[in-house]
Amino acid sequence: MDKPDFTEDPHRRFNPLKGEWVLVSPHRNKRPWQGQTEATAQDQKPAHDPTCFLCSGNTRVNGEVNPVYEGPFVFGNDFPALLTDTPKGSTGDDPLFRAETVRGTARVICFSERHDLTLPELPLAGIRGVIDLWARQLEELGKEYDWVAIFENKGAVMGCSNPHPHGQVWASDFIPNEVAREDQTQADYLSAQGQNLLVSYAARESGDGARTVAENDHWIAVVPYWATWPFETMVLPKRHVLRLSDLSDAERDALAEILKRLCTRYDNLFRTEFPYTMGWHGAPMTPGNHDHWQLHAHFYPPLLRSATVRKFMVGYEMLSEAQRDLTAESAAARLRDQPDVHYKTAAG
Amino acid sequence: MDKPDFTEDPHRRFNPLKGEWVLVSPHRNKRPWQGQTEATAQDQKPAHDPTCFLCSGNTRVNGEVNPVYEGPFVFGNDFPALLTDTPKGSTGDDPLFRAETVRGTARVICFSERHDLTLPELPLAGIRGVIDLWARQLEELGKEYDWVAIFENKGAVMGCSNPHPHGQVWASDFIPNEVAREDQTQADYLSAQGQNLLVSYAARESGDGARTVAENDHWIAVVPYWATWPFETMVLPKRHVLRLSDLSDAERDALAEILKRLCTRYDNLFRTEFPYTMGWHGAPMTPGNHDHWQLHAHFYPPLLRSATVRKFMVGYEMLSEAQRDLTAESAAARLRDQPDVHYKTAAG
Ligand SMILES: O=P(O)(O)O[C@H]1O[C@H](CO)[C@@H](O)[C@H](O)[C@H]1O
Ligand SMILES: O=P(O)(O)O[C@H]1O[C@H](CO)[C@@H](O)[C@H](O)[C@H]1O
Repeated sequence: MDKPDFTEDPHRRFNPLKGEWVLVSPHRNKRPWQGQTEATAQDQKPAHDPTCFLCSGNTRVNGEVNPVYEGPFVFGNDFPALLTDTPKGSTGDDPLFRAETVRGTARVICFSERHDLTLPELPLAGIRGVIDLWARQLEELGKEYDWVAIFENKGAVMGCSNPHPHGQVWASDFIPNEVAREDQTQADYLSAQGQNLLVSYAARESGDGARTVAENDHWIAVVPYWATWPFETMVLPKRHVLRLSDLSDAERDALAEILKRLCTRYDNLFRTEFPYTMGWHGAPMTPGNHDHWQLHAHFYPPLLRSATVRKFMVGYEMLSEAQRDLTAESAAARLRDQPDVHYKTAAG
Repeated sequence: MDKPDFTEDPHRRFNPLKGEWVLVSPHRNKRPWQGQTEATAQDQKPAHDPTCFLCSGNTRVNGEVNPVYEGPFVFGNDFPALLTDTPKGSTGDDPLFRAETVRGTARVICFSERHDLTLPELPLAGIRGVIDLWARQLEELGKEYDWVAIFENKGAVMGCSNPHPHGQVWASDFIPNEVAREDQTQADYLSAQGQNLLVSYAARESGDGARTVAENDHWIAVVPYWATWPFETMVLPKRHVLRLSDLSDAERDALAEILKRLCTRYDNLFRTEFPYTMGWHGAPMTPGNHDHWQLHAHFYPPLLRSATVRKFMVGYEMLSEAQRDLTAESAAARLRDQPDVHYKTAAG
């Protein structure tokens, strides 16, 4: 019998952080696409848009007026999914009909006053300002809540409802599913292997290079071995770090640099404002030992072949298992080959 | 302190079949939408489209010619994600870089020769024909493979690449994530409660009625208490049944009837061909006792407020926890209120 070839043969890879598998079908790359195509973001946006709810000095959807701001600006989400004062209660111990009320809050972070500049188009100091605000939000909300979700939905295809570059912060008095799962897998890994899962992983990837998209003294951005989205990446510190708020000054500067390079390469790949969901996972704010945790960011971008052709996680994916066509290694190579200069600023 | 009100207050509900939670934010229903809108399916399609790869007698994308068929027609997927003859192998026992090759096959099922008739628009006998074909495919492929995924992606927004009404069958020599999870939760429930999870659940829902969308002697279609997608439903037999192939003649007729009613109500809700991913979960084809299993279908439809406004499972949902605005009970009431006559055939 032939020897298996993991660059060509259908296979499954195991995601130790989620504790589940992904089906990889490299041979299926040539499949033609006749399905839905996405609209591309229009690249010509004004620096300030008088009709934008998020721009500096403008009136929001609920009638409040934004201050005249410069740099990142945070305010309470006008339609928060979580409220601070919900009465506490649960449905009891019926194993089939189980519910409990929850408390929390939601905020919006405009990355800067510029309506036209996405994260990679900001100067390094501007990105650093966003990182510092993330860390401060975590510290502030972490005093009251168990979990502080810091994330960005970028692009209309990712459900982003306003083109002004912004992210969100949702804090809750419970640990959400995905975080609970990573808590378990990281704890299990530490006790089984005697090592921190993601600290070991980052070191192995740094040594290998096949899945690296960008790297500097303090950080590495890789297409994880177990990536599900076509150009999915993880951003990992090289040192063992529990939370964004624990990052040193040098690590924050280096993070600004790696985010700028990663997102510039994303944008250059299909010459578009690359849509994604990105967000931070770090140790929850609950008491106890969290040494099994390692801070990391996930980028989940949907585009597959061009600015208009995306991967749909439907059908087999929703009901059986996530599936991808190109391998993590070929996705990483394509991103790594992109220039570090943003296509919008490059001459021509 | 006030008493919690599960129709208005933010809360989490537990999904015992997935073993995870969903965040419910009923107060957030009034949120305005300015984000991406979806194109609607054009309702005027010919009964036979000479340019369609799936129509009877036409030439497919790979040059093969479809026979002249009537009723459901099955053929091998031209771009299968799984292949029958992949060499066997794995990467060994490295806990961080774990992969194994897999085998399987993929087929396409055209529901009928009619290019213009979706599942609920077929006569009952036509739907019954699809059910019988599903059962036969399961029996045939189940002889060789551990898992046979039977599903439909409907609508461009769900990644469906051809408007001719069709579903798919993917068979594999492994048990995919979602099935492995349901296997575990159902086994755990049986040993903890001494009852079959979904048999008990269907009986409880049938007695209650608050989440019922359609019901007959053999089946019930409900918006599950723990639904994540706005109008998500489950279709459950009332008898304990392991697999589609175990259904009696009367149960198959009754299934055709419940599917027609459910999908007609879906279409009538927003007067559109309601997009969704649907598929069957039943006991895997592996040896051993599967009594903890109960056959069921999941419908995961993305639409939220109209034919063009969908729910995006992004950001918080991808990185923390699924979130919904309207409660399962209000979604069920809205579907239940729809007429059983399809809007396309209703006068006016
Ligand atoms: O097989 P199709 O219809 O071309 O493709 C569709 O269904 C598949 C199975 O759910 C998915 O993997 C694809 O992402 C989706 O676009
Ligand atoms: O808050 P927004 O941008 O209006 O809404 C977007 O992000 C939220 C948080 O990820 C999601 O719940 C919504 O489905 C999505 O459309």
